[in-house]
Amino acid sequence: METGAEKIMWLKTRCELAFTIESPTPFVFMLRPRSDKNQWVMEETYDVQPRIQVTEVMDSFGNLCQRLIAPEGDFTIKTSSLVMTSDYTEVDHFAEFTLIPDLPDEVLTYLHPSRYCEADRHNTLATEIVGTTNPGYPQVAAIVDWVRDYVEYIPGSSGYPVSAVEVVERRYGVCRDLAHVGISLCRSLCIPARLVVGYLHGLDPMDIHAWFEAYVGGRWYTFDPTQMNLKGARIAIASGRDAADVAICNQYGPLVDPSYLFVEVKEESKRMTGMN
Amino acid sequence: METGAEKIMWLKTRCELAFTIESPTPFVFMLRPRSDKNQWVMEETYDVQPRIQVTEVMDSFGNLCQRLIAPEGDFTIKTSSLVMTSDYTEVDHFAEFTLIPDLPDEVLTYLHPSRYCEADRHNTLATEIVGTTNPGYPQVAAIVDWVRDYVEYIPGSSGYPVSAVEVVERRYGVCRDLAHVGISLCRSLCIPARLVVGYLHGLDPMDIHAWFEAYVGGRWYTFDPTQMNLKGARIAIASGRDAADVAICNQYGPLVDPSYLFVEVKEESKRMTGMN
Amino acid sequence: METGAEKIMWLKTRCELAFTIESPTPFVFMLRPRSDKNQWVMEETYDVQPRIQVTEVMDSFGNLCQRLIAPEGDFTIKTSSLVMTSDYTEVDHFAEFTLIPDLPDEVLTYLHPSRYCEADRHNTLATEIVGTTNPGYPQVAAIVDWVRDYVEYIPGSSGYPVSAVEVVERRYGVCRDLAHVGISLCRSLCIPARLVVGYLHGLDPMDIHAWFEAYVGGRWYTFDPTQMNLKGARIAIASGRDAADVAICNQYGPLVDPSYLFVEVKEESKRMTGMN
Amino acid sequence: METGAEKIMWLKTRCELAFTIESPTPFVFMLRPRSDKNQWVMEETYDVQPRIQVTEVMDSFGNLCQRLIAPEGDFTIKTSSLVMTSDYTEVDHFAEFTLIPDLPDEVLTYLHPSRYCEADRHNTLATEIVGTTNPGYPQVAAIVDWVRDYVEYIPGSSGYPVSAVEVVERRYGVCRDLAHVGISLCRSLCIPARLVVGYLHGLDPMDIHAWFEAYVGGRWYTFDPTQMNLKGARIAIASGRDAADVAICNQYGPLVDPSYLFVEVKEESKRMTGMN
Repeated sequence: METGAEKIMWLKTRCELAFTIESPTPFVFMLRPRSDKNQWVMEETYDVQPRIQVTEVMDSFGNLCQRLIAPEGDFTIKTSSLVMTSDYTEVDHFAEFTLIPDLPDEVLTYLHPSRYCEADRHNTLATEIVGTTNPGYPQVAAIVDWVRDYVEYIPGSSGYPVSAVEVVERRYGVCRDLAHVGISLCRSLCIPARLVVGYLHGLDPMDIHAWFEAYVGGRWYTFDPTQMNLKGARIAIASGRDAADVAICNQYGPLVDPSYLFVEVKEESKRMTGMN
Repeated sequence: METGAEKIMWLKTRCELAFTIESPTPFVFMLRPRSDKNQWVMEETYDVQPRIQVTEVMDSFGNLCQRLIAPEGDFTIKTSSLVMTSDYTEVDHFAEFTLIPDLPDEVLTYLHPSRYCEADRHNTLATEIVGTTNPGYPQVAAIVDWVRDYVEYIPGSSGYPVSAVEVVERRYGVCRDLAHVGISLCRSLCIPARLVVGYLHGLDPMDIHAWFEAYVGGRWYTFDPTQMNLKGARIAIASGRDAADVAICNQYGPLVDPSYLFVEVKEESKRMTGMN
Repeated sequence: METGAEKIMWLKTRCELAFTIESPTPFVFMLRPRSDKNQWVMEETYDVQPRIQVTEVMDSFGNLCQRLIAPEGDFTIKTSSLVMTSDYTEVDHFAEFTLIPDLPDEVLTYLHPSRYCEADRHNTLATEIVGTTNPGYPQVAAIVDWVRDYVEYIPGSSGYPVSAVEVVERRYGVCRDLAHVGISLCRSLCIPARLVVGYLHGLDPMDIHAWFEAYVGGRWYTFDPTQMNLKGARIAIASGRDAADVAICNQYGPLVDPSYLFVEVKEESKRMTGMN
Repeated sequence: METGAEKIMWLKTRCELAFTIESPTPFVFMLRPRSDKNQWVMEETYDVQPRIQVTEVMDSFGNLCQRLIAPEGDFTIKTSSLVMTSDYTEVDHFAEFTLIPDLPDEVLTYLHPSRYCEADRHNTLATEIVGTTNPGYPQVAAIVDWVRDYVEYIPGSSGYPVSAVEVVERRYGVCRDLAHVGISLCRSLCIPARLVVGYLHGLDPMDIHAWFEAYVGGRWYTFDPTQMNLKGARIAIASGRDAADVAICNQYGPLVDPSYLFVEVKEESKRMTGMN
C-alpha cells in the first residue's frame, strides 16, 4: 500500500440488500472486505435483519463468506466500512510476461479455463488481438483496449452471468462480462488473470463493481475494461477465477431476487487529519 | 477403507507418456496417487527421461502436481504404483439429500458451476430427469441412468474437453464428458458433485478413467455413468470441480500431444498373503 | 451459536494499547475478533495512530494477524467491536473421551506438547488428579478443579509467560498460566486442548482474558480455571496451542512494554430490540 | 534443486521399525519423504505388517502423516525410497539478516518459542555468542560453532526429547538436541529457524538424523551442529518448529518402544546413467 500523502484515500462504503423470502432460503454472501496489504479496514459493520444466526468461513481464495438461512418474510443486510486505500492504481508498461516456471504455485490455477472464462476457446482471438505487441503488460493493455472497443459496456444489461464466449458474440455486457472477456483472453496467452469484485469510488451509476487483475512482471496488476484509463480508488471485497467463485450473493433453491440493492461509496476527507 | 478380507484388492498400475518436444515446454502433471482413507499406496515409482528437475506441489484440492519444463527432444514419463484398495464401491439408495446449511464449508465450492459443468444452465433438464424421485442418492442414480441412456459412451471420441451443455447437445462423449454431465445436473439440484480422475481395474480399452462423486447423506459417493452397475476397484489420482482442475497433463504454450500413452492396471493377488 | 432469546447477548468491546517507541519496531498483533459459528461481529473498528501501513494476514490457526512497524514516538492502537454472542457456555458431563482414531486430522496438533504446556512431563500428575474419574468431560472438570485449588489465580502477577511445569511449581499465576496448566494436564491424558484469548464480560479487573478448550465428545468445550462455574459471555479473539501461538502482541527486537492498556466489555442491551 | 552433473546424487533409503504391541495402540508416523523443489522421490515403498488400515493426511507444515492403530502382537513398518538429491549443501556467508517486515507471512511462526526451543529464555546467551558477528548467516554460523563446541554430540544418548535450555545445562545430546539449541538461539535473535528430520548419507552410526534450517538472505539455509562442515546428501522427511511437530513416530496411550529400528542410506551410482 502506497502511503505517500498524495495517494491515501479514506472511503466510506455502504451496501444494503433487501429480499422478500417465501420459504427459508440458504445463502452465502461475500460482503466483507478484509484488510490486506492493499487496504486497511478501519471500521466495519455488518447487520442482518431479522437477527438470525450467521456463520463466517473463509474460502480457498481467502475470501470471507457469510453463510445463513434467510427466514420467511422481509430480509435485509446492511453493511458499511471505512477503508484506507489509494486513489492511484499502479501501471507499468514495462512489466514483462512471467514465464510459466516462474509463476508461484498458487497462481497456476488462474491460468485454467473457468466457468465464465473459456480460455481454451480464445487462443486464436487473443493471438490476433495482441499481434506483435510486446509480451506482458502491453499485451494485457491491448486486450483491455480491444474489449472496451468491441464489447459495449451497458450497466444493468444482464441479470445472470454469461460466459466470455457469449459476451464476445453478443458484444455488450456489464462490468463483470467485460472483465470475463479480458480474463479469458489473457489466460489463453498463458497470462494468469482473476476477477475482483468490490467498490469503485466515483462509479456512475454506483453499484458493486467488477474488474480484473493480470499477473505480469511477477505481481498482480489491476485492469478495468470499463474505463479508458484506470481511475478511482478501489476496495476489493473478493477475488477468484470468475463470477462462479466470487458472487457477492450465492443463493440455493428457488430463485429469490433482491427487491432492493443500495450501494454508496464516499470519500471521508476529514479522516486525513487524524483520529479525534 | 473397508478392510474385510472379501473386499481388499491390490492393484499394480503403470502409466507411461511420451512426447516429442520441439522447444522447451512447461507442464504440470497430476500422475501421483496419494494415500488417504480410501487407498494405501504401498509402492510407487515416478521417473522422467531425461532426468530433469521436477518440483512437486499440492493444489488447493489436495492433489499432488508435478511441475517441470520438458526439454527439446524425446521426453517420457513412466509411473507405477502398487495400491491397496477395494473392489467394492459403496451404494446407498437411502442416503438423503444433505441440506445446504449442513454442508461442510469445503464442500460448498462443488455446488458452483465450473468450466465444463454449466450447472446454471441445467436446472430445467435436471428437474425433468429426476421428476418425483426421492431427493438424495436416488436423484443422482436417476441422473446417472439418464446420462447413460442419453449420451453414448464412445472411448477415444474427443481430444479436448467439451462442456456438459455441449455434450448433451451432441449426445456422445468419453468418460470425462459423461461425468461432466452428471456433475452439472447434480449441482443444478444443489447436490455437490466433483470429478475424479484415476485408474479403474478391468476398464476396456484400458486408459486413464474419469468418474464422479456426489455428496449425499453427509458423505461423498462414487458414480460412474459409463457403467450399468458400479464395478471394478478404483484408484483416485486427483479430484476437483471438473477437467479444468484435474487434467492429468496441463501444458502451456504451443500444443504438444503425447506420441504415446500406455496405461495398465493389474491385480496382484499374491500380495494378499503377506509381505515375505 | 444458540440463538434462543434467553441466551443472545450483545457485547461492546474496547481495547486500547499505547507504546512509546524508541526506534522503529516490528509488531504482530492479534486484536481482531472474527465472525464464526460462535460469534457474530456486527461492528468493528481498528485504528492505529499515527496512521501507518498495516497489513493483515491469517495464521495457520485461522487467527487474523496485523503486521506493522511502529514508528518512533507515541504509538497507539484503538479497537472496538459489537459482537453477538451468548452468556451461556455449554457444559456436558456426559461428553465422552474421543478416541484418538476418531479425532479429526486438524485436532491432532492439540495433543502435542508445546512451549508453555509440557504435556510430556505431566502424565504422572494428571493420572493422579483424575484417578478413577470417568474419561472425557469429567476428567477435564477434575483437572480444572485441581488447577483452581492448587494454583492461586492472581491477576497481574506475571509479566511474561511461564510454562505449565513452572506454574505448578510456584503455585500462582495469571489466567493464561492456569489455562496452560489445564491444557498440559489434558494433553498428557490424550485429550486435545487449546488456549483461547479473548474478552470475558464481567471480568474484574477487566483485562484481556485467557481460558482453554478441550476436545471431548467430538467437539470443543470451554473451560476456565479462574472460575468456580463457567459464567459470563465470551468473545474469542484468537486460539492456538498456547501463548506462543496466540500472543495478542508479538514484538520483535528490543523489548517495548505498553505504557497503557485499556480493556472494556459492556453489554448493549438496547441492541436486542432491533436495528433502528 | 541444482542439477549440474557434479551435484546430483541418487540415494536409496530403507527404514524399518518393529514393535511388540500389548493392546491396540494409535500411532501417527512421519516416514514418507515428499518430492519438492529440493528432492525428487522416484521410487518409494511403505509397507505395514500385518496389513491394517492406514490413512494419510497432511499436517499444517506440509508433512505427510500416516495414522493407524497398531493391533496386538508384532507390528512392523518397512519403508524404502530412491531419491534424487544433491551432495552439495548451499552455504552463503553473505546472506544477510532478513528484516522482520520482509519475512513471508508463513515464516513468522518460526520466530516463536516452541516446546523444545525456549527462545524466550535464550536472548542473553545468544547475544553473547554472536557478539559483533555480522547479522545474518554469519550469526547462525557462530551459533552452530558454539553449539558444536559447548554441547557434546553423543548419538543415542537420550531416549526422549529434552528442551534447548536443558541441553545447554547438561552439555550433551543427540542430533535433535543440538539442533534444538541452534534453533532456540537463532529465534532469540529474530532469525526464523526450524527443525528438519530426514536421512543423511554417510552418517555413522546410521540413524534417522535431525538438523535445522535458518531463514537468512530471504531463504532457508541448512545448518548441522553435528558436523564441522556441512557434508553429505540429505533427504528431508518432515520439518516443523521442533521435535513436538516432527516426531517420526507419535504414539498415544501407554508407551511402546520400538523393539527394532533399522536405517540404511546408500548411493545408487548406476542411476546416473539413465533409466534402462
